[in-house]
Amino acid sequence: MHVVVNAAMSADGKLSSRQREQVAISGADDFDRVDDLRVESDAIVVGVGTVLADDPSLTADEGVNPVRVVADSKARTPLDARVLDDRADTLVFVAESAPNRNVRALREAGADVVVAGNGRVALGQAFSELESRGTKRVMVEGGGELIFSLFDGGLVDELRLYVGSVVIGGRDAPTLADGDGFVERRSFPDLDLDSVERVDDGVLLRYLVS
Amino acid sequence: MHVVVNAAMSADGKLSSRQREQVAISGADDFDRVDDLRVESDAIVVGVGTVLADDPSLTADEGVNPVRVVADSKARTPLDARVLDDRADTLVFVAESAPNRNVRALREAGADVVVAGNGRVALGQAFSELESRGTKRVMVEGGGELIFSLFDGGLVDELRLYVGSVVIGGRDAPTLADGDGFVERRSFPDLDLDSVERVDDGVLLRYLVS
Ligand SMILES: NC(=O)c1ccc[n+]([C@@H]2O[C@H](COP(=O)([O-])OP(=O)(O)OC[C@H]3O[C@@H](n4cnc5c(N)ncnc54)[C@H](OP(=O)(O)O)[C@@H]3O)[C@@H](O)[C@H]2O)c1
Ligand SMILES: NC(=O)c1ccc[n+]([C@@H]2O[C@H](COP(=O)([O-])OP(=O)(O)OC[C@H]3O[C@@H](n4cnc5c(N)ncnc54)[C@H](OP(=O)(O)O)[C@@H]3O)[C@@H](O)[C@H]2O)c1
Repeated sequence: MHVVVNAAMSADGKLSSRQREQVAISGADDFDRVDDLRVESDAIVVGVGTVLADDPSLTADEGVNPVRVVADSKARTPLDARVLDDRADTLVFVAESAPNRNVRALREAGADVVVAGNGRVALGQAFSELESRGTKRVMVEGGGELIFSLFDGGLVDELRLYVGSVVIGGRDAPTLADGDGFVERRSFPDLDLDSVERVDDGVLLRYLVS
Repeated sequence: MHVVVNAAMSADGKLSSRQREQVAISGADDFDRVDDLRVESDAIVVGVGTVLADDPSLTADEGVNPVRVVADSKARTPLDARVLDDRADTLVFVAESAPNRNVRALREAGADVVVAGNGRVALGQAFSELESRGTKRVMVEGGGELIFSLFDGGLVDELRLYVGSVVIGGRDAPTLADGDGFVERRSFPDLDLDSVERVDDGVLLRYLVS
């Protein structure tokens, strides 16, 4: 299984402002690129933070839609979230501790709910489950908490990063990789810069994880 | 006066780990580039956070050294800090509220101490003072709190950003622009991506501020 993290960040590494509302960082060409990547993927993964903040539909403008996957330990995905609409299938990974009532409501809303992990979704286990269902290409669309955990778990193969020509700032704004962070230099995941391309008024950096 | 902000950040926008220790993000070629930029500058500016975290000497390997400038509202620069050594002149901007004792000690240590602003150093006033002393080229070497304030004050002309091929992560790690952050899309400083160049195993992005 090949896992691509795709994100748009400001020149200072932010996915959004401190208010965590969706902000336009890239432009039309990058949107098309992301749309193509969605169509090529078998699954699109996000953290529940992104569902709560942006309410994305995670569908492509045209073509067959990949399965939408939410890492949502406590089954907090709102029942009226766009990821639960009928434009594509939806798989919600929850932890054992997720309230039964929430799990039941998500199932009634049409989601496939799978338990992986105790307090928090165990992402390695969740990705093994995806693989066992025949998933070959996974696209991760954020946010920063989930992306950090994926790097921490050694689960990322590729990073496609659009760097927009804008400064957002804010010590509390979400960044590409939040979580607790790495501390020792030798524990930092090393990347191989594979390609650099100007897109819209910014730059698209493509990295392979070493 | 032309103000260049220069920094090295990880692919996820971090200047350091959450422990705020200096970490190697770039390599030998980028160090040489930074050294050349220092030699071409009349003043090198940092916030006191960088002095406390990294204790940089802010001198070039060879050549005439620019004046070192610290934004240090409360005159907290340690008396044994490298920026106070005799390899170059040092100007410390403090606020009116800075304890007299600290100011006196810094002067005795050889620094030129100038008051600008009340609670915090008023950077516009400080930069006017630099300009009135004949400073033409200013290089800002961080950190993220100071850089945010400079963008907020419209005081930045150019950004030279080395993006290292590494992930640091951490919601509490310093980023290129911290501070309170911008909130409205129209208040985000817009940049013009002027050049993109591979340096070491990362990429150097050069922006002009629109
Ligand atoms: N610019 C872009 O490309 C882009 C893309 C996406 C999002 N965003 C922005 O990013 C922000 C949201 O990001 P975020 O970091 O707050 O949320 P996120 O990463 O989408 O979701 C984080 C949540 O996922 C759940 N989760 C479950 N298992 C996890 C695990 N093992 N590790 C980490 N998290 C796990 C956690 O909640 P539970 O503990 O309840 O499960 C966690 O709080 C918004 O501002 C959004 O606009 C931007
Ligand atoms: N990778 C790189 O290129 C690079 C470069 C530099 C630093 N760093 C890293 O960055 C971190 C330090 O950054 P930082 O953000 O904590 O510190 P900083 O920006 O260097 O300094 C911030 C301090 O400057 C003082 N200051 C005075 N006037 C100010 C104003 N108007 N606006 C903002 N600050 C003002 C404030 O302290 P007072 O209120 O006491 O004055 C403030 O706390 C360290 O981890 C260091 O390793 C990395």
